[in-house]
Amino acid sequence: MSEPTPQTAPPTVDVVGVGNAIVDVIAQSTDEFVSEQGLVKNSMNLIDEERAHELYGLLGPALEASGGSAANTMAGVASFGGTAAYIGKVADDQLGEVFAHDTRAGGVSFDVPATSGGPATGRSMILVTPDAQRTMNTFLGISSLLEPADVSQETAASGSLLFCEGYLWDVDSAKSAIRTAMDYAKGAGRKTALTLSDLFCVERHREEFRDLIDGPLDVLFANRVELRGLYEIEDLDEAIEVVRSKVELACITVGKKGSILVTPTERIEIEAEEIAPVVDTTGAGDQYAAGVLYGLAQGIDLAEAGRLGSLAAAEVISHVGPRPIQSLRSLAGL
Amino acid sequence: MSEPTPQTAPPTVDVVGVGNAIVDVIAQSTDEFVSEQGLVKNSMNLIDEERAHELYGLLGPALEASGGSAANTMAGVASFGGTAAYIGKVADDQLGEVFAHDTRAGGVSFDVPATSGGPATGRSMILVTPDAQRTMNTFLGISSLLEPADVSQETAASGSLLFCEGYLWDVDSAKSAIRTAMDYAKGAGRKTALTLSDLFCVERHREEFRDLIDGPLDVLFANRVELRGLYEIEDLDEAIEVVRSKVELACITVGKKGSILVTPTERIEIEAEEIAPVVDTTGAGDQYAAGVLYGLAQGIDLAEAGRLGSLAAAEVISHVGPRPIQSLRSLAGL
Repeated sequence: MSEPTPQTAPPTVDVVGVGNAIVDVIAQSTDEFVSEQGLVKNSMNLIDEERAHELYGLLGPALEASGGSAANTMAGVASFGGTAAYIGKVADDQLGEVFAHDTRAGGVSFDVPATSGGPATGRSMILVTPDAQRTMNTFLGISSLLEPADVSQETAASGSLLFCEGYLWDVDSAKSAIRTAMDYAKGAGRKTALTLSDLFCVERHREEFRDLIDGPLDVLFANRVELRGLYEIEDLDEAIEVVRSKVELACITVGKKGSILVTPTERIEIEAEEIAPVVDTTGAGDQYAAGVLYGLAQGIDLAEAGRLGSLAAAEVISHVGPRPIQSLRSLAGL
Repeated sequence: MSEPTPQTAPPTVDVVGVGNAIVDVIAQSTDEFVSEQGLVKNSMNLIDEERAHELYGLLGPALEASGGSAANTMAGVASFGGTAAYIGKVADDQLGEVFAHDTRAGGVSFDVPATSGGPATGRSMILVTPDAQRTMNTFLGISSLLEPADVSQETAASGSLLFCEGYLWDVDSAKSAIRTAMDYAKGAGRKTALTLSDLFCVERHREEFRDLIDGPLDVLFANRVELRGLYEIEDLDEAIEVVRSKVELACITVGKKGSILVTPTERIEIEAEEIAPVVDTTGAGDQYAAGVLYGLAQGIDLAEAGRLGSLAAAEVISHVGPRPIQSLRSLAGL
């Protein structure tokens, strides 16, 4: 009986995601409210518990839906028929139960135990303006206490790809957890992927993100604003030229124009799927990543992986909520 | 300084609702799942906490939205620009906070304090089948502990109408609370209204509902199935003839055909608003009641009140969730 060591075993799932476990509190809002609250439309703002209560008191009626960037992406991978696991932290409370239920019910393996006695499960108040853009106000709660001890080596090394969200860099212990997960994944010969998450997140952690991209990272997801911010380069094509030599694959979303996939030797432009009406853009980037990651894990060619990304993004912006409602597998004709 | 006594003061709000304070857990489902679970489609089933956990484990990913029949109706009244208050019971937990927030943020006054140390806030797992019908599985939690002491005389007597949901009859203490509220309202010269809520609810409480209708009740809401069940009469018109002599107004919804408003001397048929596609019928009856109650409180003529009911029902079935998203006041051109 000589089992292969975990380091050399083949992956057992397509993608493992690591991120802040968050329940979204989604409210229709107005441009006036966003600006009265001093918010930059389409950004993610970290808020403390006091501000969370204050803002909730000002918010209109809301819907709750499980969110969290990497968790949304894993739900998308599972909706394509892929296998996915998730590492993130919830409290032993009602919103934590909601998050764990929705994540597992969406087909994603999620084994980090809920924590008692600490802060509450994280939540993000998402203001959806009439133009379908979303402005997020996140109280991280217990999700910010993710630490290396929460990261199972077995889980972190179990996917063809390990996908991490940039938002985690906002907290030191979570950052260590990510580095631990990446070490486990790289040690087992897996690919690592990162999304830059948000322009302000990039501004807070520019040097660390650059180091990671120069170092162990294989696949980068960013939108054009985040990529330009990362390298402080106004011209998108110039920024793409910088990043293309540093990672195996960079996936740059360019809004309604779709996305650009670049490798050291290739550049593929992917059109966005047409969708009308756009209801809520929350989760668009997360679902785009889901399509591409599913494609990569399955060894599908890059152009087709990009198409799956566009298709998943189109599905999620056609309704309220950050995770797919329809089967992405069926939509993609897989 | 001689203030009028509460009994003779004019109403300060249009409608006061009393009901089970419930957060909806809304999941897309299939006819197969509904029948595997032994459920009758389109009904409301009371479940205990153990069954709630079991069913939740089998449910797909869900959205959470504040619900509760009478609370939904009050949200509708407020959306028409009316004034509304609500009496119901939540726990001091996250779902209780969600319910209180959404209800107040929708413009409804809600002052019953959240209770600590008892059962959790009530919730209803709503299975939405592809035909947009909903099958509800309700764990009443603390909502079932509503008791006369929770009913403020001032609030109960503050509306032109007091609107009670039949679901409350399922628990003795809540039934007493309703009777207390009705006594306060009648004592102040207000009108009382009741919705029969659900056929099985009617079957559980037929005699008591009949007594109430024979006695103090002024306005009855029912769908055709509930009304026929109430009097155990197959023919809808015959059942309508029975009820019309007993209340000032009976509002009978007849599905896609709209509704019939009957008084001892009048019968008005109201067409349903056309709506396509129908997404989720949850809340249709609640919002119909909102339109009619708002109209009655404002002294609008019956046919127009019925039209407001149809319009509110059409809005709510066009999207997921039991409360209006668009302003009913704007939709109605008020």
